[in-house]
Amino acid sequence: MHLGILGGGQLGRMLAQAAARLGVRCRVFDESPDACAGHLAELCVGQYNDLARLDHFAADLDAITYEFENVPVAAAEHLAKRVRCSPQPGALHVCQDRLLEKQLFQRLGVGTAAFATIDTQPDLDVALQSIGLPAVLKTRRLGYDGKGQAVIRSVAEARHAFTTLGSGRQALIYEAFVPFSRELSILALRRHQGQTAFYPLTENHHAHGILRVSRAPAPHLTPALTHQAQRTAAVCLQAMDYVGLLAIEFFEVEGQLLANEMAPRAHNSGHWTIDGSQTSQFENQIRAVLDWPLGPTNPIGFAGMLNLIGDHPPIESLLAIPHTHVHLYGKSPRPGRKIGHINLRTDSAAQLDLAIAQSSALIEPYAS
Amino acid sequence: MHLGILGGGQLGRMLAQAAARLGVRCRVFDESPDACAGHLAELCVGQYNDLARLDHFAADLDAITYEFENVPVAAAEHLAKRVRCSPQPGALHVCQDRLLEKQLFQRLGVGTAAFATIDTQPDLDVALQSIGLPAVLKTRRLGYDGKGQAVIRSVAEARHAFTTLGSGRQALIYEAFVPFSRELSILALRRHQGQTAFYPLTENHHAHGILRVSRAPAPHLTPALTHQAQRTAAVCLQAMDYVGLLAIEFFEVEGQLLANEMAPRAHNSGHWTIDGSQTSQFENQIRAVLDWPLGPTNPIGFAGMLNLIGDHPPIESLLAIPHTHVHLYGKSPRPGRKIGHINLRTDSAAQLDLAIAQSSALIEPYAS
Repeated sequence: MHLGILGGGQLGRMLAQAAARLGVRCRVFDESPDACAGHLAELCVGQYNDLARLDHFAADLDAITYEFENVPVAAAEHLAKRVRCSPQPGALHVCQDRLLEKQLFQRLGVGTAAFATIDTQPDLDVALQSIGLPAVLKTRRLGYDGKGQAVIRSVAEARHAFTTLGSGRQALIYEAFVPFSRELSILALRRHQGQTAFYPLTENHHAHGILRVSRAPAPHLTPALTHQAQRTAAVCLQAMDYVGLLAIEFFEVEGQLLANEMAPRAHNSGHWTIDGSQTSQFENQIRAVLDWPLGPTNPIGFAGMLNLIGDHPPIESLLAIPHTHVHLYGKSPRPGRKIGHINLRTDSAAQLDLAIAQSSALIEPYAS
Repeated sequence: MHLGILGGGQLGRMLAQAAARLGVRCRVFDESPDACAGHLAELCVGQYNDLARLDHFAADLDAITYEFENVPVAAAEHLAKRVRCSPQPGALHVCQDRLLEKQLFQRLGVGTAAFATIDTQPDLDVALQSIGLPAVLKTRRLGYDGKGQAVIRSVAEARHAFTTLGSGRQALIYEAFVPFSRELSILALRRHQGQTAFYPLTENHHAHGILRVSRAPAPHLTPALTHQAQRTAAVCLQAMDYVGLLAIEFFEVEGQLLANEMAPRAHNSGHWTIDGSQTSQFENQIRAVLDWPLGPTNPIGFAGMLNLIGDHPPIESLLAIPHTHVHLYGKSPRPGRKIGHINLRTDSAAQLDLAIAQSSALIEPYAS
């Protein structure tokens, strides 16, 4: 079995690692010859608008999936004529655009923050009136890790952000600022015939827009929260006729979930599953796209994940932390760059708290 | 960090997988361009007596280890002049030869079956008298998976085996047949400065000389058995000034362990550690040879391992077995060939028994 992966970053690398266990060979497509997934799999370097290169990539593949949601839809559509691409390019199209995501949520009755599309200055003036302040102005496309967005507390900030984020050249979305108590995410899977599976809700802590720490299962989960998250994921999967792994991020506000955004791929908040669940998110993505039975998604005890951002302490000190599993991506250090993560797995929530505290103290001085 | 691995079979492949998690790049040396570790790591194809090729392999490596004990000692010695090789070639020399192994055990006061070296027909006659029958006649070198050995129940069988196993061209060892109740193995680790770690004793079931099923921790373990196994491993590690992973196989006879053989590498009976322990044997081998802190070796619940030999059922049916982790090596099916294994991890011994029974029923019809 031969799987193609569009995108060769750390998610592609971890997909290739999971594939190798199952005897599945991978070929990775990336624009960069340094893509870290290329250390473990055949790397096909090319541009997404180079159709001949895409054809070369697709030769003899049994299936194609993504590690990166900003694959140009035209490239995915071209490939899908030759090889089954999962999720299908239409789902990719939705997940690339914050407005289409929000409109899908709205159509499916899924709660979100109030939002408006902003193409022009008059659109912004209307949104300032109808949605009000505070708010967040975001590019509709290509934002990640807090990039391409600005918090708006005044009309002056709104005008400034409108200019810096694209001033009409780039489509924007204006969203009410949600006074959330925490951020949660769910990872959901669906096979061709509709079989679904859900990992437990994960609690996520960000700093400067970048995920720092996840905990799974999220503390203080209620059956109502789990039900709402799984129902949201289920209707989204069905509406997009989705095959593969879908991540949805939520805000929790007074015991209710508001959907924030989706990612049509493995997700940083699911890295704990590598060591904290019988089946990792990466293995389950592969199983879904190859139409193999999905694996159990229950946690084994309590899991935490801490990102290594910018740089990390010497590996010897990471390895010496109790309950730690170290994951490094083979990327060179650079401020703001995710170069690895550690997973913590414990048998009690108290042990996990302690392990997270201990790890944070070690890691934070190196983060940049 | 760049690690060299001598041998590119499934053990090298799983070493490369464990290395990738830690951000360690691997280069694998093998005589075959089809070596399955080459799917995941840079593959250097060459003969072990080609010193220029070995030099090419060794360029820029930080350390070298083995997945295969029959690396010619001269090749390891050549490499060790340039790059730290762990375990050191002297240990490899001992572990390649059943006689040297047994003599080491004897010198260290470790119990073994009675044995004698057999170079000539008169040696055989003496052994038949002094050790008696039944017995096992084995080649001193290059035997594995039951190859290179014969059970001897009569003088006629002894003469026949002496001829077929090498008739004086190949050095042999004659060992008393041990009326053992079961076979157990231990995996032991040692770092440069002497830090050691031990996995729990594993119970192993063979058929036709090939490992079929392992269980860890071995059922009905007593503190005395564990103590004896760990003490044996500790004295062997120290005597050989060993760095890396050492596997020792034992026979249990009336509550005592007799050492049978050693392997200076990851071992089939330790594959359960990938999914059943916080740290896999492969990761710990890497940590030992790079002189990084060893990881915890305790089991998480109960673990079992079943080899896939010759061929296997469709992957969909393997993946559907509860508690299963599927590992395929990317090797084509062939009678007697290890092409993968499944690990089972459960929270109770009873669940494990059930999962092993269910898996065996599925796997056995495909084994050859």
